[in-house]
Amino acid sequence: MVPIASPVGLHRVVAPDGVLPQAAETVNSEGEIYDNEARIRVEKLNLDAASYRQLHSEHNGDSEAIRANVLEIIQKRGKMHNPVTGSGGMLIGTVEEVGPDWSLDLSVGQKIATLVSLSLTPLEIYDGLEQWDGLSEQIPTDGHAVLFERTIAAALPDDFPENVALSAFDVCGAPALTRDIVTRFRDEKERPPTVAVIGGAGKSGSLALAAARKAGSSQTLAVVYDHKERKAAESATLADHVIVADATDPIAVSQAVAEHGGADITVVCVDVPGSEHGAILSTNAGGTIIFFSMATSFSGAALGAEGLAADVEMIIGNGYRPGHADYTLSLLRDDTSLRRYFFQLAQGEQS
Amino acid sequence: MVPIASPVGLHRVVAPDGVLPQAAETVNSEGEIYDNEARIRVEKLNLDAASYRQLHSEHNGDSEAIRANVLEIIQKRGKMHNPVTGSGGMLIGTVEEVGPDWSLDLSVGQKIATLVSLSLTPLEIYDGLEQWDGLSEQIPTDGHAVLFERTIAAALPDDFPENVALSAFDVCGAPALTRDIVTRFRDEKERPPTVAVIGGAGKSGSLALAAARKAGSSQTLAVVYDHKERKAAESATLADHVIVADATDPIAVSQAVAEHGGADITVVCVDVPGSEHGAILSTNAGGTIIFFSMATSFSGAALGAEGLAADVEMIIGNGYRPGHADYTLSLLRDDTSLRRYFFQLAQGEQS
Repeated sequence: MVPIASPVGLHRVVAPDGVLPQAAETVNSEGEIYDNEARIRVEKLNLDAASYRQLHSEHNGDSEAIRANVLEIIQKRGKMHNPVTGSGGMLIGTVEEVGPDWSLDLSVGQKIATLVSLSLTPLEIYDGLEQWDGLSEQIPTDGHAVLFERTIAAALPDDFPENVALSAFDVCGAPALTRDIVTRFRDEKERPPTVAVIGGAGKSGSLALAAARKAGSSQTLAVVYDHKERKAAESATLADHVIVADATDPIAVSQAVAEHGGADITVVCVDVPGSEHGAILSTNAGGTIIFFSMATSFSGAALGAEGLAADVEMIIGNGYRPGHADYTLSLLRDDTSLRRYFFQLAQGEQS
Repeated sequence: MVPIASPVGLHRVVAPDGVLPQAAETVNSEGEIYDNEARIRVEKLNLDAASYRQLHSEHNGDSEAIRANVLEIIQKRGKMHNPVTGSGGMLIGTVEEVGPDWSLDLSVGQKIATLVSLSLTPLEIYDGLEQWDGLSEQIPTDGHAVLFERTIAAALPDDFPENVALSAFDVCGAPALTRDIVTRFRDEKERPPTVAVIGGAGKSGSLALAAARKAGSSQTLAVVYDHKERKAAESATLADHVIVADATDPIAVSQAVAEHGGADITVVCVDVPGSEHGAILSTNAGGTIIFFSMATSFSGAALGAEGLAADVEMIIGNGYRPGHADYTLSLLRDDTSLRRYFFQLAQGEQS
């Protein structure tokens, strides 16, 4: 009889011993909850972009094979934790049961999104993912998930479509951390920074740009992949300058950014491997790089900066920041142009 | 006629196109230098431990075969860049020629160590590695290496044995960055931080502890692997408290650190995979983690912090910091007990 379980979910780890649920090979996803847990009836999974891309590439776009692989991962691991990318995603559902010692202000029947990764969330699927065509990151399904005491989830807002809110929550660490780093730069250096966002036309990128602007950058640069993205970013006025450059080409990226004086803060939001060197070369001495891409290589960044004698601070983008979900929704509510752009991005994912 | 070449050595890349020297398959190692380069007459190569271990294992300890393989790599790639481990090492030599636009304060005839990896340093060997028995990481040789404009090298000090200086240079980013983060914490929060160093008995760890103490921490905690390390760390008074805990056991580490009030700054210096979660759980809200271990998993850290709803800033340890080599030597010069301890660590490596 241990009604109160580990706040971080240690009691759900099946193997290996002594690790946290995120590092676990397998977790126990059974629906009977402890007094400090909550059970969510799952309606939709939203796979992490890097995870979906990896699956899509591994199976050459074969939707049946992708679906079977996702189901196999969930059944085997007790969570949707892509073993190749290490990433997960989020889910939408309804609070089905909360233990008497549950910590968050969420009640039964409320519709919520989880803000912690699927890579650590115990999950069981009831419908064999039959409702999903395997062709997008968003998976309509039926099942349950378990939330621990030390977790985060947010009520879905009334004024956003579900998938837009989900998309916003998915990346809400990026704008919140960007805001904080811009603020710190201003406090420390007593001048506003130039902020470059590599992958500035994407979801996390467009929000990071908005956060940088609102927090008082001197100028914002969006580095985007092609002219189509440039046009879209320009017509939504996401940044002061929109630059087309391949994020994996360090010379192209850094030369383009250098034309605007280089970046004091560089935010990497592009989910492709090999963007570390371009970010390092784009950042001025004394500046900061925030890596939000899950494709970031730790040693590529660490050795790259050393090899280039780059006096830059490099931050691992933490998906959590107190108040990050509300802050991100407020950015979207306050900026009509950004909101329209972000809606299109989020809706476009369903097409 | 292009007397000034790329500061980062792009002009030396032979293949493939458009990458930096570190990522290159082959570089041009010819000794004729550009105006912003320097040529070093090489006296000794110091292979990265992982690289030598791989070669030793591949050739079952056959010293002739190891020597032939190293020579082949250098001749083929124009640099000592182990294709299996991806790592290099450092070199010691004498400045032979500097271009008129060379940036560092090093003059002809000075004895130096390079602080950038051999994996990106153009290198040519004159003596067929004949002076080397193939049985250790240290290779006495004769040859030349080329340094780019944007590179780092340090003069070898008179008051340290060569291998102690090399060991100190190898990890000198850790104490320098630790000092800066402690200083920033004090400025921002207006109180001194508790600093925990995981792997506090090692080379980078002992220096990081000394830096934390000198920069004004309120208390320092060394987390070490076993009681032998604890005794050594205690008798050298590396930290205020020395704690024995397995870095890969998040609960053990965090509970031990929590007994001292938790850490405001946690420095990870232990080269084993799986230490991210222990560091995250050990760090108080609003605190900072610096990851110096090359075994750090980017996604493990990013998703771990998110999954634990941990309000912490996580920094990728950059091996470069302006003045880092001199600062590290000064730490060793100022602290007799630390110096004795560090000498033993560095000398022990040769046995």
